Amino acid sequence: MTNYKPGDLAGVGCMVDADGTCPQCRDGFEQFCPNTVLTYNAPDKHLGGVTYGGYSESIVVDERFVLRVPANLDPAGTAPLLCAGITTYSPLRRWGVSEGKKVGVVGLGGLGHMGVKLAHAFGAHVVVFTTSPGKKDDALRLGADEVVVSRNADEMQKHAGSFDFILDTVSADHDINAYLNLLRRDGNITLVGAPAKPLGVSAFALIMGRRSLSGSNIGGIAETQEMLDFCAAHNITADVEVIPIQKVNEAYDRLLSSDVKYRFSIDMASLKSE
Amino acid sequence: MTNYKPGDLAGVGCMVDADGTCPQCRDGFEQFCPNTVLTYNAPDKHLGGVTYGGYSESIVVDERFVLRVPANLDPAGTAPLLCAGITTYSPLRRWGVSEGKKVGVVGLGGLGHMGVKLAHAFGAHVVVFTTSPGKKDDALRLGADEVVVSRNADEMQKHAGSFDFILDTVSADHDINAYLNLLRRDGNITLVGAPAKPLGVSAFALIMGRRSLSGSNIGGIAETQEMLDFCAAHNITADVEVIPIQKVNEAYDRLLSSDVKYRFSIDMASLKSE
Repeated sequence: MTNYKPGDLAGVGCMVDADGTCPQCRDGFEQFCPNTVLTYNAPDKHLGGVTYGGYSESIVVDERFVLRVPANLDPAGTAPLLCAGITTYSPLRRWGVSEGKKVGVVGLGGLGHMGVKLAHAFGAHVVVFTTSPGKKDDALRLGADEVVVSRNADEMQKHAGSFDFILDTVSADHDINAYLNLLRRDGNITLVGAPAKPLGVSAFALIMGRRSLSGSNIGGIAETQEMLDFCAAHNITADVEVIPIQKVNEAYDRLLSSDVKYRFSIDMASLKSE
Repeated sequence: MTNYKPGDLAGVGCMVDADGTCPQCRDGFEQFCPNTVLTYNAPDKHLGGVTYGGYSESIVVDERFVLRVPANLDPAGTAPLLCAGITTYSPLRRWGVSEGKKVGVVGLGGLGHMGVKLAHAFGAHVVVFTTSPGKKDDALRLGADEVVVSRNADEMQKHAGSFDFILDTVSADHDINAYLNLLRRDGNITLVGAPAKPLGVSAFALIMGRRSLSGSNIGGIAETQEMLDFCAAHNITADVEVIPIQKVNEAYDRLLSSDVKYRFSIDMASLKSE
């Protein structure tokens, strides 16, 4: 370890290692390395068994996978940046989200709430699509300019052909063509949620307007550091509910029923009291 | 008419008019103008009824939609360039197909055979995917470097993660994920055929490798002229079978059974003998 000294605040995201030599690693896309080692539930070559990520007191991480946590950011709100933050930051950057662009965020959960905060910080006009009218106030508070209830076909139709980019965070089955039709020419929808069932995509919706549908998977390490530094400059963290490790099973049940705003962070000090 | 004089060889593609004032027209994307008038089967504001395109002796065309046909190109082989040519040229250009790129063409029909000729002329390494092993020799003659029989899973797997771009010309239902998995990071598949049924797209296939799936619809007028000039410089025309108008119904039946290499061109002189 040469870049950090004892006492530095460091962060670790979804990966603890990769081969460092493949074309993906060389290009800064460690998340696509065939030999990447995930932080959670991957074979642990140092300790045997599998990696336990944020559920363990200590972990072994290749130095290249350690990130500097800016001093002005709250650690509990920073932890989810290393997954939900980079997962949304990377596609927003790749597709040129910036001032003057109209950007949609589908779904307002852990990923969606970060998408809203970041797209707003990039200067875009942000529209949140949700099936829950009750989420409107929260969406506006997080930085949305408009909220559309996606079950309302008339409301959807008003936005036809108008979006530069839509970030789709929904991991349940949904009608992707309803969103493709909202894109302007050359507009893109990027999926960061992964519905288990294939999405039924209308070729016509893609052909008219040269639209595209793509996916994105977290981000590389250099881009993750860039995201943290961007968040520090804009004072952005995730909205979290901090829980002791003793409440992890209850928190898991609440996650399944979407009862969290918007991520749980575990206070690891509580592990010591076990 | 100011740009052409009697006796000039002119061509007309899929459009005869558009409003000329909307953002799509201003950007050179007349094919996406909400008021575009198609050459065939669109309400004809000059003569009433509908437009009859290439089945009529004369048509009314706004001058902006008339194209210069280079003198060195055979007219019968040039006619399909104005549809199949621009439909394949436009996405190949948009997605940067050039020397050093590995490019797939799915389906070897009217669109596919133009995709092969153009991608080859752009300097790409061209791989044809076909369900018909019998098309191999023809694919190589047209400019393909390799031919893959897409029903052969082992042969497909050898190309996993290796394509920069794939042009999908198939308008029947097919497994798009088998092709998405052949793309490298940031690779794109563009659909120019339009299957009637939605395509089942695996989110996972898009997310791993940030791949994208998009569509393309002919091309604008300026780009169509650019395509004709490119074809003139590279001596490219469509492979056609010229028929008299009297054989049009027979030709239609043969089209439905894919029995044409690769487009029919109607010799309009035959209409005069009616």
